[in-house]
Amino acid sequence: MSEAFALDPRLAADTAHVADLPLSRLLLMDDARFPWLILVPRRAGLAEWSDLDRDAQHALLDEVQHAAAALRAEVSCDKLNIGALGNIVRQLHVHVVARRVGDAAWPGPVWGSGSAECYAAEPREALLARLRARLG
Amino acid sequence: MSEAFALDPRLAADTAHVADLPLSRLLLMDDARFPWLILVPRRAGLAEWSDLDRDAQHALLDEVQHAAAALRAEVSCDKLNIGALGNIVRQLHVHVVARRVGDAAWPGPVWGSGSAECYAAEPREALLARLRARLG
Repeated sequence: MSEAFALDPRLAADTAHVADLPLSRLLLMDDARFPWLILVPRRAGLAEWSDLDRDAQHALLDEVQHAAAALRAEVSCDKLNIGALGNIVRQLHVHVVARRVGDAAWPGPVWGSGSAECYAAEPREALLARLRARLG
Repeated sequence: MSEAFALDPRLAADTAHVADLPLSRLLLMDDARFPWLILVPRRAGLAEWSDLDRDAQHALLDEVQHAAAALRAEVSCDKLNIGALGNIVRQLHVHVVARRVGDAAWPGPVWGSGSAECYAAEPREALLARLRARLG
């Protein structure tokens, strides 16, 4: 029997669940400094984008673009940052971050920049609801 | 007449030309700390991955994976980092970086981490030749 998908506990601890897309679990990073989504393909044992077959590689990119478009529609931003790093959490995941000129890390990357500032419950739930309405 | 593609001068200054793939110009970042490729689609006026149509979005990902496989075959690494940021250089470009546990930025991102250490001419030309043999 093949291993089942399980979300890495560090990703689970740092995020809220937005929706399950056909391939990926879509998460909102609980950091009010940056509107920040994470996509995690729901398959076990993946670390690199290339661990998916080519069709699934394309499907993941399609979901990244779909999530990015929804994020852009809900929050203002000057630039999107897309990244698959995995130096700390090895489970394959792709970041989609809405960046604004002058934000807390601008123009540097968000990864490793300062400490997360969690959302208050109400704005987090409101953003989740709006993203789900676009993507759910 | 549509605007012609021209490589951003900052990207040109920081890199060496590896090869032109069907869609992208492939560059080697001149930073011996990290084996680091950059792909720049040879079309004018692009800033976001989503500025390409869907087929070209997939083609860019295919070239990213092709470049990543060549890089992995030539240098040892523990993790690939793939990123499209564009906070400083707006022209659409995708980074493919071979990361090693304990490298100069590990486990943080390479972007904004310290100062580049240029290659000596001989190892740079040797790496370029090996990459071209795989990708050219």
